[in-house]
Amino acid sequence: MGKKVKTAITPTREEDYSQWYQEVVKASDMSENSPVRGCMVIKPWGFAIWENIQRQMDAMFKETGVKNAYFPLFIPLSYLEKEAEHVDGFAKECAVVTHHKLEKGEDGRLVPAGELAEPLIVRPTSETIIGESMSRWTSSYRDLPILLNQWANVVRWEMRTRMFLRTSEFLWQEGHTAHATKDEAMERTLQMLEIYARFVEERLAMPVIKGRKSESERFPGADDTTCIEAMMQDKRALQAGTSHFLGQNFAKSSNIKFQNEAGQEDYAWTTSWGTSTRMIGGMIMVHSDDDGLVVPPRIAPAHVVILPIIKKGADNSGVLESAETLKVALRQQTYYGLPVEVEIDSRDIGGARGWEWVKKGIPVRVELGPRDIENNSVFMARRDTGEKKGLNRDEFINTIADILDDIQDTLFQRAHAFREANTVFIDEKDKFYDLYKNAKGYNNGAFVMAHWCGSGQCEEKIKQDLSVTIRCIPFDSPDEEGTCICCGAKSDRRVLFAKAY
Amino acid sequence: MGKKVKTAITPTREEDYSQWYQEVVKASDMSENSPVRGCMVIKPWGFAIWENIQRQMDAMFKETGVKNAYFPLFIPLSYLEKEAEHVDGFAKECAVVTHHKLEKGEDGRLVPAGELAEPLIVRPTSETIIGESMSRWTSSYRDLPILLNQWANVVRWEMRTRMFLRTSEFLWQEGHTAHATKDEAMERTLQMLEIYARFVEERLAMPVIKGRKSESERFPGADDTTCIEAMMQDKRALQAGTSHFLGQNFAKSSNIKFQNEAGQEDYAWTTSWGTSTRMIGGMIMVHSDDDGLVVPPRIAPAHVVILPIIKKGADNSGVLESAETLKVALRQQTYYGLPVEVEIDSRDIGGARGWEWVKKGIPVRVELGPRDIENNSVFMARRDTGEKKGLNRDEFINTIADILDDIQDTLFQRAHAFREANTVFIDEKDKFYDLYKNAKGYNNGAFVMAHWCGSGQCEEKIKQDLSVTIRCIPFDSPDEEGTCICCGAKSDRRVLFAKAY
Repeated sequence: MGKKVKTAITPTREEDYSQWYQEVVKASDMSENSPVRGCMVIKPWGFAIWENIQRQMDAMFKETGVKNAYFPLFIPLSYLEKEAEHVDGFAKECAVVTHHKLEKGEDGRLVPAGELAEPLIVRPTSETIIGESMSRWTSSYRDLPILLNQWANVVRWEMRTRMFLRTSEFLWQEGHTAHATKDEAMERTLQMLEIYARFVEERLAMPVIKGRKSESERFPGADDTTCIEAMMQDKRALQAGTSHFLGQNFAKSSNIKFQNEAGQEDYAWTTSWGTSTRMIGGMIMVHSDDDGLVVPPRIAPAHVVILPIIKKGADNSGVLESAETLKVALRQQTYYGLPVEVEIDSRDIGGARGWEWVKKGIPVRVELGPRDIENNSVFMARRDTGEKKGLNRDEFINTIADILDDIQDTLFQRAHAFREANTVFIDEKDKFYDLYKNAKGYNNGAFVMAHWCGSGQCEEKIKQDLSVTIRCIPFDSPDEEGTCICCGAKSDRRVLFAKAY
Repeated sequence: MGKKVKTAITPTREEDYSQWYQEVVKASDMSENSPVRGCMVIKPWGFAIWENIQRQMDAMFKETGVKNAYFPLFIPLSYLEKEAEHVDGFAKECAVVTHHKLEKGEDGRLVPAGELAEPLIVRPTSETIIGESMSRWTSSYRDLPILLNQWANVVRWEMRTRMFLRTSEFLWQEGHTAHATKDEAMERTLQMLEIYARFVEERLAMPVIKGRKSESERFPGADDTTCIEAMMQDKRALQAGTSHFLGQNFAKSSNIKFQNEAGQEDYAWTTSWGTSTRMIGGMIMVHSDDDGLVVPPRIAPAHVVILPIIKKGADNSGVLESAETLKVALRQQTYYGLPVEVEIDSRDIGGARGWEWVKKGIPVRVELGPRDIENNSVFMARRDTGEKKGLNRDEFINTIADILDDIQDTLFQRAHAFREANTVFIDEKDKFYDLYKNAKGYNNGAFVMAHWCGSGQCEEKIKQDLSVTIRCIPFDSPDEEGTCICCGAKSDRRVLFAKAY
């Protein structure tokens, strides 16, 4: 056996994946748990990633005619109750505002006072409150479509939380549209899922499978929920975005009516679609390694860190100056229309300095010492492959955008190959059960494409037996005859099974 | 007497300024009241203005080394209680979360359930929760300064609300910094106020007076509150931004300690500074007229609307095509680094179309008919001055950025001249009292620069007698001997009095 390699993160993925995740987040300085139950603090390095996600997604939404707006944080209890399935889905875990001030109690401590006539719910999602506005804005088919999005915080009172993956408060975008026809609403549902898939694959470098949810996994109140699912390194699935076709359900409960071209009154067809800070959790689990975070260049807060080699007691001004000019030259290069972002870290703290940046996942590190300056060279290290090499300084400057593209591509290809290597087609129940029963710790089995008869009972049995769920019915799953992996009944399509976050 | 001119907004400013404001907001389609008490819905036209404000301010903050982060929405009651003045200032108007789920009650209706051990307050501001994090991040002077900002929603339970000016939930940015020395913290306080002043003057075209608040008007828990004050068209003052020097008060209550360079333990010096959607309320009241909203070009969601002249039954394809090519040509012009934003409105709804854009306050309207195309001309109207003129099409395209600059400048100069014309120096108590006692409706007197002895009693008496407050002690108020406008005692500086929003 080889000797154990020292890693920057303890434990390693294999030793304890869940703990590894927490340590990666901590070591990267992206975020931390707050003293407020289930809420996290997103620190600058983590928030800058979210800002990059926001900026890029926002532009993609706007290209399709979507406009941003902002709706109230609070939803009156009676609004939430309007749609029966919807309230059942969210009532079990919501923050309830019952008072509007604090007063000194008998013991001198402050206590809630000014009880509200109707409790307010901190939005877990905004279909009902936005539906109320849409009902006022819609009288004719000429008022449609309405294409809205909001960037907001939402609250779902989670009992077991994990930074980015599941927190009581989280940041997200929620799109809400209303249409005159069913076809147009369905088209919008799929259009937004397509944007999510493109964004997650091209920017977060996470390959995804697009499909629709089974009935039991639908958004509460939706007629159809479509989703993108990605494979993490522990072979679990993570849902990275959902787009819902809401039929006329919310239009009926919110009274979104309009007069159609034929002059008849009809209910609108609505959609909603969302992605959240959870995507960052997915990004961490797909790309990071036992030395910490790896951030894809397209959403990295900074692309290059320059580490001038500082000598105690020596005159370091030449090295520092050279670092500055290198930074200026790199920032004149553009990467997708924006300057290449560069940090200089000239702290004199020895080897810990380089490791900090490894753990923060910055795509490229550059060491710069007196000899490099003499030779007009730089010594660079790639975070994705670990490759280190000396390079002519001008060549480095001129090719930095290509290097970043190559890192982005390498991350995507690696994740894609990993998923392909861990996706299997299974037709025998025993094999299916064995695979997941033997799955332990870091190894959660695989993505299994298997036949399913369509019954909720079979779905539930597998969930009970193995903690495995139908992640989606992939859009590209071809028509194919087979028998249900659970009950043996006829099936005409494979679905995607996996353990999930 | 001249005959009454028909205006797009009823009532006019003079008839009922407060109602005029509500009608301007409504007619511009910027926002509307929501059914949730005290909360508003910000519609796309209003939110796009906020997005422009955010983008531009954010860049100004970042230039000074500030980084964005995100802290929890909820503040445990015990945190709020840490700073005595602070909790007194906010406890009377806050949303209190007391439960974390809903359950069916005896009558089958949902009721709050799962009572929390400690109530949570929806943040009215985040000093206490951010202070808690800072206390964990700070151990040495090397960890300082910490320079943070967050864009967030906050809640203060207001009893009387007005869209943008005062709502229970509002959007804002709150900056929070911690420093090793008092001087550095004071410097940061003033630096951020300077950025606010620059932003509001250069982008919102609102002239402001910079100064510090009297003790009674300070932020609860601050040692010093600095502010910018602008004059509205009814001669009331609006506070458009505040920057607070918090001394060591919050560092002590949150335990933000560090070891200084001399090796001694000390408390940090902190600041906080904020601006909100209230700035939009100010912008509306400074620039708009009896025909509706006027938006300064630098923060306008769109700069130009093209109104093709459509003829019923005729072939309008030539006009529509020409409008498209004009749009493309205009978008190739840049205005402060971004494309000139152009809308085309080809609805066939007669004169109402042009008026809609007047009421939305778009800086430039362009009519385009067959004759204009023949003559290679456009017919443009400026929203600020009402000026209308025919112009060579290429000249219009090539000078659009200059036209927008001129509009921006005209708006600022007009507001500045108005404020200057309505700012008076008064030394006699009777004159002071007469001015404000005769102020009615649209006319709220003036900005009065008068001497004040510095006592809270005089300040309070004037407030009680006249509903006039000390808006600030202007930084540029020169040392000058005089006597207090209220009690006649000696004073060495004039302060700014006004009625205020």
